[in-house]
Amino acid sequence: MEYKDRFSEDVGNFFRSPVREIFKRVDLNAIFSFAGGYPHASTFPMEDIRALSSEVIDKYGAKAFQYGATQGVPELRQAVSERYGVAIERVQITTSSQQGIDVCTRVLVDPGDVVLTSNPTYLGALQSFKSYRADVRAVKVTEAPEAAIEAILAEGKKIKFYYIIPDFQNPSGETMSLEERKVLVALAEKYDFLIVEDSPYRELRYEGEPVQTIYSLAPERTLHLGSFSKIFAPGFRLGWILGNPALLDCIYVCKQSLDLCPPMFDQYMAAEFLSTGRLDANLVKSIELYRGKRDHLLSLLEKYMPEGVSWTHPEGGLFLFLTMPEGFDSVKFYDTALDAGVAYVAGSFFHVDGSGLNTMRMNFSFLATERMEEGVQILSGLIRKELEKL
Amino acid sequence: MEYKDRFSEDVGNFFRSPVREIFKRVDLNAIFSFAGGYPHASTFPMEDIRALSSEVIDKYGAKAFQYGATQGVPELRQAVSERYGVAIERVQITTSSQQGIDVCTRVLVDPGDVVLTSNPTYLGALQSFKSYRADVRAVKVTEAPEAAIEAILAEGKKIKFYYIIPDFQNPSGETMSLEERKVLVALAEKYDFLIVEDSPYRELRYEGEPVQTIYSLAPERTLHLGSFSKIFAPGFRLGWILGNPALLDCIYVCKQSLDLCPPMFDQYMAAEFLSTGRLDANLVKSIELYRGKRDHLLSLLEKYMPEGVSWTHPEGGLFLFLTMPEGFDSVKFYDTALDAGVAYVAGSFFHVDGSGLNTMRMNFSFLATERMEEGVQILSGLIRKELEKL
Repeated sequence: MEYKDRFSEDVGNFFRSPVREIFKRVDLNAIFSFAGGYPHASTFPMEDIRALSSEVIDKYGAKAFQYGATQGVPELRQAVSERYGVAIERVQITTSSQQGIDVCTRVLVDPGDVVLTSNPTYLGALQSFKSYRADVRAVKVTEAPEAAIEAILAEGKKIKFYYIIPDFQNPSGETMSLEERKVLVALAEKYDFLIVEDSPYRELRYEGEPVQTIYSLAPERTLHLGSFSKIFAPGFRLGWILGNPALLDCIYVCKQSLDLCPPMFDQYMAAEFLSTGRLDANLVKSIELYRGKRDHLLSLLEKYMPEGVSWTHPEGGLFLFLTMPEGFDSVKFYDTALDAGVAYVAGSFFHVDGSGLNTMRMNFSFLATERMEEGVQILSGLIRKELEKL
Repeated sequence: MEYKDRFSEDVGNFFRSPVREIFKRVDLNAIFSFAGGYPHASTFPMEDIRALSSEVIDKYGAKAFQYGATQGVPELRQAVSERYGVAIERVQITTSSQQGIDVCTRVLVDPGDVVLTSNPTYLGALQSFKSYRADVRAVKVTEAPEAAIEAILAEGKKIKFYYIIPDFQNPSGETMSLEERKVLVALAEKYDFLIVEDSPYRELRYEGEPVQTIYSLAPERTLHLGSFSKIFAPGFRLGWILGNPALLDCIYVCKQSLDLCPPMFDQYMAAEFLSTGRLDANLVKSIELYRGKRDHLLSLLEKYMPEGVSWTHPEGGLFLFLTMPEGFDSVKFYDTALDAGVAYVAGSFFHVDGSGLNTMRMNFSFLATERMEEGVQILSGLIRKELEKL
C-alpha cells in the first residue's frame, strides 16, 4: 500500500534531525562523541532520585499516578514560580521544553508566517518551525536588523516572533549582552512581534555574571522556555513556559489535545527536587564538572588544532563552535571523522540558510574528561590533513 | 497588550474540554462524580511501582534518565511487540495515547479534510481533529454508510481516516461486533481511507469474548492506539501506536519536533511491569473491581431511575450511556446536579453535531462503590423531577 499521497501538507516540510540520525548510527559511548547535547550522566542525582521516588510515593500516593491538571501540578508550578520570581498563573509546565517550542509555534504561526532567529540556531526549533511551514529568517540584532526586518515586512509577511537562546547558545555557545537584549526588545516593540526566549542552559554558568533574561525586560511580549533537562535529568521530559496568562491560556487549551497533562510522577519528583534545595546542591556539582570539561576542551583545542581554526569561548552551557577556513566542508568531513571514531555535528545543520559549511558544533558535556584528549587529537589531525588539501 | 490577533488560524478552532473544565470547578473527591474517565486509584499497583522504581534505577542507572530514542526505549517496544504479537518495527511509543491521536491527525489531515467517526465519540479526539480544522463527520457503519460516504465525496472532500473506539466505547460503552468491524474495513478498502483504532479500554473486559481488533483485520490500513493509562496508571502518560513502518516513520519524524522522546523512567517502569508479568496480575484485580462497580451501577440504575430513562450495558471499559426522553437537556441540567453534589458529562459534548442533548455519560470506575447508591439516588430523583416538568 502507498501512503505518500495520504500525508498532510505539513509533512512535506518535516525533516529528520541529523543529530538524532547520528544517535541511531553509532553507540555514542563507544566513540569520541562531541555530537549530541547530552548532559553527562554523572550530573544525574541518582541517590536523590532514588530517595525522591520513595518520598513522592509516600507523600502523594496514588495522586502521583492519576491524571492531573493540564497546566501542571500546583506543587511544581509553585516551585518554578518561586525560583524564578514570577506569579504562579504565569507558569505552564510542559512535557519537555521541546514541547514548549512546538506549542508556541502551533498557536502563533500559520504557513508562510515569518519566524525570526539568529543564524545559527537550535536545530530542534528549526524542525518545529519548518513543520508548521513557517518562513524562518535569520536576522542578527547586531547587524542592521531594522533594514532586514523592513525588507521582510515589505514582502507583505507577518512576523510572529523572534526565537532566541540568549544564554550559551546552542550551537554557538555565545551569550547576548544586556545591550543586545535591549535592542531585541526595542525591535519587538517597534515592529510588534513576540519573543520566544529559549533558556535551557541559563543555570549552567561557569564564569562571569548572569545577564537579565529577556522575559524580565519584556514580560508581556516574551514567552520564556525553561527546561529540567540540564538541571535535573532529560529523561523526565519536563520544562516550563513563563508568559502572560492570556498567552498561556491558549497554550493550555492546545495542550489538552496534545497530551492532556505532563507526566505526573516526574512532576512531583521535580517539585520535591526543587523545593527541598537538592536542585541547588546538585547544580553546584554540575557546574564544577562542566567548567572543568569546558576548560579542558579549550586547552586541548589550543594545543592540537591547526592554524586557521578558531572557536568560541562559552561562559556556560554545553557547546562551543568551531570555524574552519572557507572551503572546509564539515558535512562531507563527517564520515572521515566518524570512521576514525570521532563524532560532532556539522554547523550547517544549524544554519537557517544552509550556510556555515566550514563550522562545527562541539559538545563538551557528554564525553568523559579523560577521553577528550585522544578525541581532540584525532579530530585535529584529520582537520589538518583536510586543510592541506584545500 | 492584545494577543488575539497574533494567534494562528488553528486556534480559532480550539475548544476547551468541558470534562477538564469540570475538574477545575470542583474537587472530584468531594462529590459524587460520574464525570471524568479516571481509573480508580486502588487499581494503581503502588507496591509494584515502589519496587519497579528501585529495580529500574538498579538495572538501568543513569540511562533511565538520559535522552532516549524517539521511537521509545527498545525494552518497552519489545514488551508491547510481544504482548500484542506484532513486529517491533511496527511499534511506536507515544507520550500518552492522546498524543497518538494528535500525531496521527497532524500527519494525515489538512484543514477541510474529512475525518469520519461514530456519533457520539471521544471528546479529546474531537478536540484534536477540530484543532487541525478537520471536517469531522459522523457516519455509522450500521446505517447506510455507503450513501453517507458518497455524499461526502460528492462534495469534493478527501476522507483521510475513520476514527473508532471499537471496544467499550467512550462515551457509549458499546462494543462493535466482528461483522461491524468487517464492514468498516470493507468501507475503508472501497473508499481508500485509513482507520485509526483507539483502544484504551480493550483489556478491561468484564464479560463475553474479545472481538478481533480492527488492526488485526487490516494491519496496513489501520493505526492502532494503545494506552497504559487504564492497565498501569495514567500519570505515566504512556501509550503506543501499532502500524505500518512507513506510517510510523512519518510519525517518528513528527515526534522529534514534538517532544524528542517519551519520558524515560516511566518507559522503563512500564517495560518491567509488562515483562515481569505484574501487569497481568494487576489486571485481574482491576477487572474484578470494575466488574463489581459496573454491576453495582447497573443495579442502582435499575432500582432508582424513573421510567423513560434507558442505558447501555457495557461489556467492559469505564462508561455507560444514559438516554432520557426527548426534550431533556443534560447541559442545562448539569448545574442542578452539581449543586446537589453529583457530576456527569453531558452527552452532547461527545456528539459531532451537538445532538444528543438528552444523553449523559456515566463513569463507574472512579467513585467509591459504597458512595454510588447515594449518588444515583440523588441523580435519579433530580431527573425524575426534571422529567415531570417536560
